[in-house]
Amino acid sequence: MELREFELVQRIIKLLDIKEVDDCAILPFGNEYIVITTDMLHKSTDFPDSMTPWQIGWMAVAVNLSDIAAMGAKPCGVLMAIGFPRNISLQFFEEIINGMNACAKRYNTKVIGGDIDTHQELTLVGNAIGIVQKDLIIKRKGAKVGDLVCVTGNIGDAAAGSVALEVLKNDYNIPDNIRNTFTTALFEPKPRVKEGMALAKSKVVTSMMDISDGLAISLHELARINKIGFKIYWNRVPILKEMKDIFNLQKLLELVLYTGGDFELLFTVNPYKLEHAKRACNFTVIGEVIENGVFIEINGVKEKLDDRGYEHVRQKVQKL
Amino acid sequence: MELREFELVQRIIKLLDIKEVDDCAILPFGNEYIVITTDMLHKSTDFPDSMTPWQIGWMAVAVNLSDIAAMGAKPCGVLMAIGFPRNISLQFFEEIINGMNACAKRYNTKVIGGDIDTHQELTLVGNAIGIVQKDLIIKRKGAKVGDLVCVTGNIGDAAAGSVALEVLKNDYNIPDNIRNTFTTALFEPKPRVKEGMALAKSKVVTSMMDISDGLAISLHELARINKIGFKIYWNRVPILKEMKDIFNLQKLLELVLYTGGDFELLFTVNPYKLEHAKRACNFTVIGEVIENGVFIEINGVKEKLDDRGYEHVRQKVQKL
Repeated sequence: MELREFELVQRIIKLLDIKEVDDCAILPFGNEYIVITTDMLHKSTDFPDSMTPWQIGWMAVAVNLSDIAAMGAKPCGVLMAIGFPRNISLQFFEEIINGMNACAKRYNTKVIGGDIDTHQELTLVGNAIGIVQKDLIIKRKGAKVGDLVCVTGNIGDAAAGSVALEVLKNDYNIPDNIRNTFTTALFEPKPRVKEGMALAKSKVVTSMMDISDGLAISLHELARINKIGFKIYWNRVPILKEMKDIFNLQKLLELVLYTGGDFELLFTVNPYKLEHAKRACNFTVIGEVIENGVFIEINGVKEKLDDRGYEHVRQKVQKL
Repeated sequence: MELREFELVQRIIKLLDIKEVDDCAILPFGNEYIVITTDMLHKSTDFPDSMTPWQIGWMAVAVNLSDIAAMGAKPCGVLMAIGFPRNISLQFFEEIINGMNACAKRYNTKVIGGDIDTHQELTLVGNAIGIVQKDLIIKRKGAKVGDLVCVTGNIGDAAAGSVALEVLKNDYNIPDNIRNTFTTALFEPKPRVKEGMALAKSKVVTSMMDISDGLAISLHELARINKIGFKIYWNRVPILKEMKDIFNLQKLLELVLYTGGDFELLFTVNPYKLEHAKRACNFTVIGEVIENGVFIEINGVKEKLDDRGYEHVRQKVQKL
């Protein structure tokens, strides 16, 4: 019998007596929290052939730093366990290390250790440690009815990247420079470390998580945890102009709402203190917290937003 | 071209600019160090068919806690990334979780998070976080000529466990109760967390590491790092009496010195302060630190100790 994924996660959480689900696990140390996260990536699911080894290394670090960013924490170090097939070349291996190193450095941290082992399938399991003052940490729990819903950056670029990769199989006419923007968004995601820390410092963010699994599924997750609902306005969701030129509305909705891959932050803000948050970083208000249900208004019509995203066990249950 | 393992590790250390190699990576926090480690285990290398899922979970936690113990630190939490084949049962999966949980609890810590994903091969990548006062941490570096060489527990039980498993293929007559002792040592290793912390508190240990890769290879590693040598006395190495009844000298040497799997601590002590250390925990003095070379005296004859152990990339380069 194949494992039912939802049941599996519920069982783990129960067996381990885990009370709160966040982007990172949290350990108290004096006036601060150490936050810590791990993510398993591997060839068949996460590293398409068109991805360079440098990008594989970058991604394996970035995915962990994005979890640190989602708590408003400052990254302190990254460990990486690498399982590699015996037939990969030293050059390929070194490029993975270089990509890891570049991503860690870009976010002012360092790969400080790890483990290597031969493995049937190329497998990278990173873990990142961060630190944040106790009074500044931002959790998934905390959103209140009336709060504003916000996102950093543009949504859908990474999803468009996965379309751009299927160039020979699809009908979209994507200019080369735009194709490059999309695939870079997909393969070299930029975790919002600086933004996460600045938002934490603003003290007006009530809940936060990253949306690497997709915007819709993340909204549903925040709604469940906070026992609230959301109303999102499609015309406020920040989308690259070129996306709108290339894709029709139906495809756009799919890419922007349900596909995932963007390492952006989704967060809620006390509406009376929006100006404080705006001083922290650039972001877009896309809707508001309501009492029940997750809805999107598209061209004046209010619709239910589906609870689905990147179709993958990992993504559904990212943190135990 | 197959990767040459030694070269690979040297390249990683150079590319990442890692200065010191220890059982854990070390992060300073005020008057304390956070120590952190990761270990990748997977089916084809680490989980023989005779291992229960509970033991798989136990092992994946224990191997990380042993690294924490080797720095004299107190474990604060464990994360576990699990890649599982789609065909494993919910019961099998739950038993892995139960084993993880039992091991963490046994050492007064907790599995606080992780990641799950489907994977071709059952793969468990744990990471553990520990804390230790800055003035108490014990590193691999620090051994001085004249120091005494010590080990906790008995050496070779886990190695005998791997022989005991091959019962139909080998000629050794191992009584059932002893077989059980050996296989339990192999599959349910007990990391020396309490002993590591007590030795750190004693402040008289000059260097330490765990010997899960084998006694001989660990001695060579400590010798390299400290630019010293060792003289070990075979008749002082603590070996279970039943081992001597079952195996001849040649096989015993192989199992005790070169096979590995025991989660014991190897450490050096200032000879004038041995009594302080003895108040910390039980251990055995097996030799002394000399200027050069790694030797063992067997029945009055001094021989070179080979630089070999558990034949596996991971073990050779356990920590980057």
